[in-house]
Amino acid sequence: MDILPALPFIPILEIIGTFVFAISGTLTAADKKLDPFGAGVIAFVTALGGGTLRDLLLNLRPVWIQEEHLLITVLASVVVAVLFRRKIVKFRRTMFLFDTAGIALFTVLGMEKALRVGVSPLIALVMGVVTAVFGGVVRDILCNEIPLIFRKEIYATACLAGGGTYLLMRLAPVPAGIPMGVAILIIILVRLLAVKFKWSFPNLNP
Amino acid sequence: MDILPALPFIPILEIIGTFVFAISGTLTAADKKLDPFGAGVIAFVTALGGGTLRDLLLNLRPVWIQEEHLLITVLASVVVAVLFRRKIVKFRRTMFLFDTAGIALFTVLGMEKALRVGVSPLIALVMGVVTAVFGGVVRDILCNEIPLIFRKEIYATACLAGGGTYLLMRLAPVPAGIPMGVAILIIILVRLLAVKFKWSFPNLNP
Amino acid sequence: MDILPALPFIPILEIIGTFVFAISGTLTAADKKLDPFGAGVIAFVTALGGGTLRDLLLNLRPVWIQEEHLLITVLASVVVAVLFRRKIVKFRRTMFLFDTAGIALFTVLGMEKALRVGVSPLIALVMGVVTAVFGGVVRDILCNEIPLIFRKEIYATACLAGGGTYLLMRLAPVPAGIPMGVAILIIILVRLLAVKFKWSFPNLNP
Repeated sequence: MDILPALPFIPILEIIGTFVFAISGTLTAADKKLDPFGAGVIAFVTALGGGTLRDLLLNLRPVWIQEEHLLITVLASVVVAVLFRRKIVKFRRTMFLFDTAGIALFTVLGMEKALRVGVSPLIALVMGVVTAVFGGVVRDILCNEIPLIFRKEIYATACLAGGGTYLLMRLAPVPAGIPMGVAILIIILVRLLAVKFKWSFPNLNP
Repeated sequence: MDILPALPFIPILEIIGTFVFAISGTLTAADKKLDPFGAGVIAFVTALGGGTLRDLLLNLRPVWIQEEHLLITVLASVVVAVLFRRKIVKFRRTMFLFDTAGIALFTVLGMEKALRVGVSPLIALVMGVVTAVFGGVVRDILCNEIPLIFRKEIYATACLAGGGTYLLMRLAPVPAGIPMGVAILIIILVRLLAVKFKWSFPNLNP
Repeated sequence: MDILPALPFIPILEIIGTFVFAISGTLTAADKKLDPFGAGVIAFVTALGGGTLRDLLLNLRPVWIQEEHLLITVLASVVVAVLFRRKIVKFRRTMFLFDTAGIALFTVLGMEKALRVGVSPLIALVMGVVTAVFGGVVRDILCNEIPLIFRKEIYATACLAGGGTYLLMRLAPVPAGIPMGVAILIIILVRLLAVKFKWSFPNLNP
């Protein structure tokens, strides 16, 4: 608990990330013609599913069970998404930027949490990626789709690149905030470039 | 542990609820042309999946791992459902009543268990709904369907109405059994009325 | 912890089982046209998903989080499967034998682990089957299929037969390795015979 208090903007970013993920979940649910309850569940798992799986695997009680503000953030975002759906759709580009920032942040926060309960760096990297991407995987399963991330999104790779850098920089004698900032920038950069230049891995059965 | 011993009918209702949910799971599995092993798994997750997720989230060991009689109830109900399938189908109305009673009971028991490990009322409400409805969600995922409850069933809302009432009444100086009984009645009533008058939420993409 | 150290070949068999399950997961992912990241995830859940669920249910931290070599085994098997896919496909018969041996081993190891944390024999049997077959179930869910095992594979039954024998023999005053060896042989035998003679349960809705 030495870094987070020193970086007071992190809880705010975490709430923004949760909010944006939940909005994106609600929009997906609306596309699938779900009702408001279904939309709430999809928003919840999109936003908090990754962190929940991470905490279950680390044998901890998930954060949102202890800190109610994350659940309230999800509820608020569902209301906003339902009321302003038409307007939000026009801001897809902005949404995408927030979403990318959210993934980057969740990767680093997830790794840091895992490292603090004493797992190895490799496992911490896995936990970071789980935190960032697993919510989207469950969202796709609930909506009866093969998860998008398994097919064409490169963003897990962006998380791995940023997360790996974070692990290396953490060994260096620099202030704690610097590896975190650099890792977040790398993840954002890789994903933006991947989308701009349509980078993707070939599928395995060409 | 102050309420449950004082209400000796609860363990019996819990077994009845488990039995009915497992029968309904077995019938779904038969519709999907699964084999007896598949039917057993579907029956199990329908009946015990919600409580299992609740306990995992609260970082407890699921009840059925400690108390074998719930697992044996599921096995018995699979045998009954397979042997008497044709007859059971005729009792759909009775089944529906038991199913509704089961959901009501599971909501309240799930909330009570969550409150006792010290979570906030809002989180306890979520845990109650998870206990009641998550088994059906996993059943639908395993059967490769978008979960029914996300599309047209109003019963999560019934659970929320009853669960909210339970939280409010629990603050009042009345004997412990009264809020529980009232909450269960509200859930049953809302669901029966919803089905009778075909109440449902509009989907989000009309 | 009295049996495992006395049977030094078990960790090696465990790695072989993990390797083979991960290869089979990667090949499934390739059939579904997933990218390398998706293949890695499918390989992981196929190989380690069953043990992970068992450990979550027993309220333990999953083994692969503590012991990195299992995760590294999965990564290695993905690389091997991607590089040598054409050749591996020719060895389907050998793969099938290893897969069967893996299921047998995972059943017995899963039961033993459950018994050691103090659950009843019936629950331990369920945990053994979960360890052996749940990875394949999640693989099929992620690939958007009704799990194969619910429809026509008899191998859960093979696990139950071997697991039941293990529980009975464990009561007898024989050296610890003997029940384990017999149970593994029974599981392998039942599955091979089931495949050879096309044994299967009828589905429940003929």
